Amino acid sequence: MAQNELVFLPLGGSGEIGMNFNAYGFGPPDDRQWIIVDCGVLFGRETTAPGVDVIMPDIRYLAEQRDNILGIVATHAHEDHIGAIALAWPMLKCPIYATPFTARLIAGKLEEAGLSRKVRVKEVPVGGNLSLGPFALDFISITHSILEPNVLAIRTALGTLVHTGDWKIDPDPLLGEATDAAALSKLGDEGVLALVCDSTNALVPGSSGSEAKVRESLTALIGTLKNRVAVTAFASNVARLDTIAKAAKAHRRTVALVGRAMHKIVSAARDCGYLTDFPPTIDATEAADLPPSKVLYLCTGSQGEPRAALARIADDSHPDVHLAQGDAVIFSSRVIPGNELPIFDLQNKLAARGVEVLTAEDHFVHVSGHPARDELAQMYRWTRPRVAIPVHGEMRHMTEHARLARSLQVPQALVPENGQLFRLAPGRAELIDEVPAGRVHLDGRVLVTEGEGLAKGRRALAFAGVIVITLILDGRGRSAAAPVIQIEGIPAPVHEAIRKAVDTSMDRYNPKRDGGGELAESVRRAARRAAFDAWGKKPVVRVAIAEV
Amino acid sequence: MAQNELVFLPLGGSGEIGMNFNAYGFGPPDDRQWIIVDCGVLFGRETTAPGVDVIMPDIRYLAEQRDNILGIVATHAHEDHIGAIALAWPMLKCPIYATPFTARLIAGKLEEAGLSRKVRVKEVPVGGNLSLGPFALDFISITHSILEPNVLAIRTALGTLVHTGDWKIDPDPLLGEATDAAALSKLGDEGVLALVCDSTNALVPGSSGSEAKVRESLTALIGTLKNRVAVTAFASNVARLDTIAKAAKAHRRTVALVGRAMHKIVSAARDCGYLTDFPPTIDATEAADLPPSKVLYLCTGSQGEPRAALARIADDSHPDVHLAQGDAVIFSSRVIPGNELPIFDLQNKLAARGVEVLTAEDHFVHVSGHPARDELAQMYRWTRPRVAIPVHGEMRHMTEHARLARSLQVPQALVPENGQLFRLAPGRAELIDEVPAGRVHLDGRVLVTEGEGLAKGRRALAFAGVIVITLILDGRGRSAAAPVIQIEGIPAPVHEAIRKAVDTSMDRYNPKRDGGGELAESVRRAARRAAFDAWGKKPVVRVAIAEV
Repeated sequence: MAQNELVFLPLGGSGEIGMNFNAYGFGPPDDRQWIIVDCGVLFGRETTAPGVDVIMPDIRYLAEQRDNILGIVATHAHEDHIGAIALAWPMLKCPIYATPFTARLIAGKLEEAGLSRKVRVKEVPVGGNLSLGPFALDFISITHSILEPNVLAIRTALGTLVHTGDWKIDPDPLLGEATDAAALSKLGDEGVLALVCDSTNALVPGSSGSEAKVRESLTALIGTLKNRVAVTAFASNVARLDTIAKAAKAHRRTVALVGRAMHKIVSAARDCGYLTDFPPTIDATEAADLPPSKVLYLCTGSQGEPRAALARIADDSHPDVHLAQGDAVIFSSRVIPGNELPIFDLQNKLAARGVEVLTAEDHFVHVSGHPARDELAQMYRWTRPRVAIPVHGEMRHMTEHARLARSLQVPQALVPENGQLFRLAPGRAELIDEVPAGRVHLDGRVLVTEGEGLAKGRRALAFAGVIVITLILDGRGRSAAAPVIQIEGIPAPVHEAIRKAVDTSMDRYNPKRDGGGELAESVRRAARRAAFDAWGKKPVVRVAIAEV
Repeated sequence: MAQNELVFLPLGGSGEIGMNFNAYGFGPPDDRQWIIVDCGVLFGRETTAPGVDVIMPDIRYLAEQRDNILGIVATHAHEDHIGAIALAWPMLKCPIYATPFTARLIAGKLEEAGLSRKVRVKEVPVGGNLSLGPFALDFISITHSILEPNVLAIRTALGTLVHTGDWKIDPDPLLGEATDAAALSKLGDEGVLALVCDSTNALVPGSSGSEAKVRESLTALIGTLKNRVAVTAFASNVARLDTIAKAAKAHRRTVALVGRAMHKIVSAARDCGYLTDFPPTIDATEAADLPPSKVLYLCTGSQGEPRAALARIADDSHPDVHLAQGDAVIFSSRVIPGNELPIFDLQNKLAARGVEVLTAEDHFVHVSGHPARDELAQMYRWTRPRVAIPVHGEMRHMTEHARLARSLQVPQALVPENGQLFRLAPGRAELIDEVPAGRVHLDGRVLVTEGEGLAKGRRALAFAGVIVITLILDGRGRSAAAPVIQIEGIPAPVHEAIRKAVDTSMDRYNPKRDGGGELAESVRRAARRAAFDAWGKKPVVRVAIAEV
């Protein structure tokens, strides 16, 4: 019988921000049992995938062996770790495990997807453990920018893996558990085979800082403001929401939650026993009746999302919240790379209306939830792994993380790419296979493999438009009516040149000599060439033949 | 006869980064004489204007009175100040004035546009002056991130205006003139009506720093590197190019210029008498034969431009430059907002190949060319204007700049928007009119007004694709052949639903009862609805009728 192996397979999150998706396998090569750790999405961008809301990994490799998948384990409830669960579950049909707050939010996703009768999330207590076939998992509390982030210690007969999920070391996280340094240090004492670790801030020196310090600073800042105040923050950062609500209370402002995600998260946190002393909130409609100095709007939309509360407030199209000269908006958040222009656009709209905009660029109103270099070094000192495996980052973060790990005397550092299968034990860790990987777009309601090129094809339309031509021929291949030329996205002065080129092509056509296919191709080329000559760009051109 | 007035009209650059375009008018309201200060472009972005390379202001208001335009005066040679000259000139047909280096680069643009026989740029000496009708202009040297930046003192019978162009106060600019503080201060003594001033860094505390300090730091950094080094910088920053070349020389590396813009700028600077001690350079082909420790590639492409040298190097598709494990790339530049993702993409490709990436985030390798708040304050102390007019910035920058000016006791601060016409004298400055303004896209080779919605229409194609249907009817309006349905950018599983919906619509069609127009509309609606039901997105749908 073949020897047991312990393998690691990242399918998302390696070499990119978002869609964290990792699998660990144990067993002989032809009969591995798998656990999946996190199952996240990435949000689509107009530049790379226009019309795509959400991107998930291509998981066909695991779907084909779903009978050997023991479960999906979620480290925490951020979208880039749980956002694909409802999309992936129909392909995997395995149990789902998470601590209570995370389980509550996953259950909401399953409910929305109409899957709540088919699968229930199994709750693991905070600090609990879980046995899945050859894997014994300990959930070790750590800190991050959400409730209940967990490091997973994954024990197997071939060694112990530590999978960090997203984390930082916050000496005073305000809500939830502190980092269980003793447990991490004990793992190091027992011996850790590999540390699979967050790379997001591997380029950032020092430490990420504490929520408690943000609370002090935000409370002082809000105290300096006289009129209406709106604060936007990531809704999932419950400690931050609590901070903002308490800062409001300290200055006798009543909080109105604005935006669906704010209500959803506050409610989920309360259901799980958090936010027991969260100040009472009012509706935005009621808030409109309070004096400006007595209200604080806690809003979604810090990333400039066009349908979120703050975008509507900036456009003055929100039904209940109206800001004006002398009011202030605080962005208690960071700018996620790629969101600069929509965020600045929103800030410009606010500034144009005389609203003061206060951000993390000029005020201490945010700390990151990911480990900076000193924190990474601390994690390596605690766990002392034989192998460092940076994940959750772009290549520039992961390569720098590997460099840091080597400088900390970690004997081996791997920089994995999605789809690479590594044997971690027995023997030295090494790449042994590459499996199908890539991205799948949720395009409207349809899942489409990125490689099919649908979104890329639409980018071509966005660049140079499209010419669609229908040629109408009779049974003998003769032209039976003028070609129908429909043009989208091309400047009007170019249309005439296109029409002329099609006409010329038709004039040269000899049905006795040429077939319809040849005609279609010559028309296609003529139209494209004419557009290029008149315009300098080459549109997509499609030609069809109708026979009457 | 109506009273003379002095007016200010921004047509670009107010409320946005780029396409700086300002006009000053003097005379009675119905017979003003104009000068235009700067004539810049903005680069198109896939998110807002896909397929558009360059954006310029809509200048129809000035084009209509071109006989009263005395000239275009360029403050300096950055694209956002001179990039639209060759596009705008055919509409304006007025003289162009600039100092020698700027004139040289404008002449290059006119040459490329085939205009060099029609218009020659008139050179104004550095520190010189120019009389244009009622305007007397002094060119006052200042510092920026390019050679020959000028502040314009614009003297009129109704008072003196100071138009800063882009500037900083660099105590040691290394190349070109120092800031003529005495001239600026003297203007203040004589009395300044209005200061029209760069707002780019109005949110940045302190000072921008000096090129000389970057030279020290870059020289030290390059000294730590052992293998091939590539440095990317804005080609127009000639002092920076000189710094990099001298740092290379200090470590016995020979410089190879890589990228067309590098050659162009170095050649222009030499023609104008700069860079007399620039170290000799070699071709990239020759550089390939040198030991890795003896070469430094000075490359275009710091903003992740896909066709620039560095993008091709990162893809390893450059014919002459190949970087590998152990080599290093220094980004001696900033990230222009909106370019984050392409720049990071490029850095990730380099990192994936083992190339070390050094940036302004972790090393002191760049200083901004725009005034931070301390420098702005200094400019106000020198010039002591009655009115502050922030330009060249987004709204968030301009409003903060106005706030700063008021805090410095400037009696009046205006925040202009493009197309707003302000009377600056006589009397208190005030908005007196709004003229047609907006943006014009250079779409391929065709100028298209943004308001026509061409690029916006293409974004709709990118979002949800397009369905083009040709209905073929006979002379009595009966269907003569099956409709031709051409679909682009829509997932294959949705096509069948669209085809069925069109068929059903055709089946319901009664040529005796309904006209062809009604048929087309019902087919259009049915196709769009079917796509939405099956997919969740609404594509563009076009229906045409062919009669046979």
